[in-house]
Amino acid sequence: MATLITGIGELTTNDAELGKPADVALVLDGGVVAWVGPAVRAPAADERVDVEGRAVLPGWVDSHTHLVFAGDRTAEFEARMAGKPYTAGGIAVTVGATRAASDEELTRNLSRHVDEAAAQGTTCLETKTGYGLTVADEARSARIAAAVADEVTFLGAHLVPPGADAESYVDLVCGEMLDAVAGHVRWADVFCETGAFDEAQSARVLKAAAGRGLGLRVHGNQLGEGAGVRLAVEHGAASVDHCTYLSDEDVAALAASDTVATLLPACDLSTRQSLAPARRLLDAGATVALASNANPGSSYTTSMAFCVATAVLQMRMTIDEAVWAATAGGARALRRADVGVLRVGARADVHVLDAPSVTHLAYRPGVPLTYGVWRRGERIR
Amino acid sequence: MATLITGIGELTTNDAELGKPADVALVLDGGVVAWVGPAVRAPAADERVDVEGRAVLPGWVDSHTHLVFAGDRTAEFEARMAGKPYTAGGIAVTVGATRAASDEELTRNLSRHVDEAAAQGTTCLETKTGYGLTVADEARSARIAAAVADEVTFLGAHLVPPGADAESYVDLVCGEMLDAVAGHVRWADVFCETGAFDEAQSARVLKAAAGRGLGLRVHGNQLGEGAGVRLAVEHGAASVDHCTYLSDEDVAALAASDTVATLLPACDLSTRQSLAPARRLLDAGATVALASNANPGSSYTTSMAFCVATAVLQMRMTIDEAVWAATAGGARALRRADVGVLRVGARADVHVLDAPSVTHLAYRPGVPLTYGVWRRGERIR
Ligand SMILES: [Zn+2]
Ligand SMILES: [Zn+2]
Repeated sequence: MATLITGIGELTTNDAELGKPADVALVLDGGVVAWVGPAVRAPAADERVDVEGRAVLPGWVDSHTHLVFAGDRTAEFEARMAGKPYTAGGIAVTVGATRAASDEELTRNLSRHVDEAAAQGTTCLETKTGYGLTVADEARSARIAAAVADEVTFLGAHLVPPGADAESYVDLVCGEMLDAVAGHVRWADVFCETGAFDEAQSARVLKAAAGRGLGLRVHGNQLGEGAGVRLAVEHGAASVDHCTYLSDEDVAALAASDTVATLLPACDLSTRQSLAPARRLLDAGATVALASNANPGSSYTTSMAFCVATAVLQMRMTIDEAVWAATAGGARALRRADVGVLRVGARADVHVLDAPSVTHLAYRPGVPLTYGVWRRGERIR
Repeated sequence: MATLITGIGELTTNDAELGKPADVALVLDGGVVAWVGPAVRAPAADERVDVEGRAVLPGWVDSHTHLVFAGDRTAEFEARMAGKPYTAGGIAVTVGATRAASDEELTRNLSRHVDEAAAQGTTCLETKTGYGLTVADEARSARIAAAVADEVTFLGAHLVPPGADAESYVDLVCGEMLDAVAGHVRWADVFCETGAFDEAQSARVLKAAAGRGLGLRVHGNQLGEGAGVRLAVEHGAASVDHCTYLSDEDVAALAASDTVATLLPACDLSTRQSLAPARRLLDAGATVALASNANPGSSYTTSMAFCVATAVLQMRMTIDEAVWAATAGGARALRRADVGVLRVGARADVHVLDAPSVTHLAYRPGVPLTYGVWRRGERIR
């Protein structure tokens, strides 16, 4: 069924040729954008939706979440906000609860969060394993994720499980665990940080994953300057995520590479870190994406609009830069050309705001502005 | 009709005796809270709503908005975010558009924003005049506001109108203009700041308003340390709003007074100021409220949840402090005992979150968490 969208007040296409054309209409058909052109020449369609002057943009591409999880860490967040010590927290808590949960519980929890994100305009979502940390639990997480999310990343190298030897655990990740998840995931990731995996261990994981044909991602430079960005660039990773602490060499390396710097402002705020240096990256010519890092520990939000507002209000990204980073930037971080853009042939992932322009995402922070959402051409809100 | 609310996962009452009682139910009847007590002893009611473990709190009390306006200032916001000069902006732009608008336009725009706020849990809202700045336009704004908002403040002393002489304008505000708005407003306010009204002018406005029996409010200390807080305390104002820049003397004066310090974090972010020193105020013993300052120039949001999240994540207020400040604190700033609290006899203004605790307001920033809203006992969402 073809849907004609008219009355578009502002259209963000993220397409270099189309730009932000005025007085245009869109046709969605067969799950893709079938036509974009002057409203006065719009073809007939099975249904017509007049959005009455509202802004239209591609659905959010949230390229970084950890949503295959069970359990609750509200008390840990409360303690962190109160500046109190809290020893019963951390990733290991979620690992315990995730292992103990049934497949049905994990699927239900993941789907609930994906639906919550979709209701806010997220039409393409990546999620990761990393709360299993055994061969069986990582494989199960990968399988569950693959059934629900658009993109799945293997993050066996999230944390050395309590009691395990780091080198032996890396052997497991690079061998049996990679074998077990291979059919379900397109990406592998490693948490390269003091307290997680060091440079040599991280490099082993990336090399092994690349050897199986997986695309690479890196968690890096979250808690301090480190090897994450350098490694990501050296191994041709699609993205290095966090980038809160960057040396000038890191910025230059990113600018000279195809590796996207994915910034996670909600995580920076929720952990009371500094906000990542978006301006330095953009001014140097690096490609920047914005993602939610939705997870129950360090960033429990699915709101890409909050990330965009924070990026503009507090990280000095312009509105156009922030909206691009949360749509086309996420797509770039996932090496996809079919999402984060509205042009003929792109996936029909459309977000309509209850506002005349994308500027209102930062001008009106916190106000729920999602008015309509189509995912693969199907209206889901 | 009596409504029994059961299944409450967490109840925030803001009542010193009730605290946060477990396993309780609420009955709303005749527009007020008719009963609070153990769920197992809940009386019969005409209807019963099971909120299935969700958190329940008083509706937000937004004690500072400027929503009697017309016109658009999106371009000014864009320029500010881009760090570009913009000479066509400011309050005078809104004054021009407001004067030119019909009563119907002003009422429709105000109602639309009040409804938007209510859909996010704001059940008691103050709004101000201040975009009229002639006797007729201020009187009209006051009349329109009184028909829609819970509390109305006369802010003729918002700005010296372009071309007017400041002293003569203050004479007008203190005389004819006060006479014209008197029947519609309970409060008077003055913008005491460099570029608006100086200490002597502000004091004249406050004295004249108090002489007519109006309660007092002050816009102060937004752009730098100034006389605002001192004046507010000296004149027994119910609230001094902004408080972004405070001397130690200001903090001490507030702590020793009944004047509430109303912080406007969305405004601080939207104008790229520092966030107000909430911790200093609270630690000294001052009473703190949080409000949106919703207006088309410096803070175009109606989201009290965004203010609460910002207060917790970035201003180091605890979750309980921030939630109190956005409910009971707002009520205190409006000198009202019937809102911002859930106890027998209070207005039946109830906010149900799609979350098990109020913590999620900061734990999940940007996620629209409003699940249900009753205002004066009537379900509006
Ligand atoms: Zn992550
Ligand atoms: Zn104000």
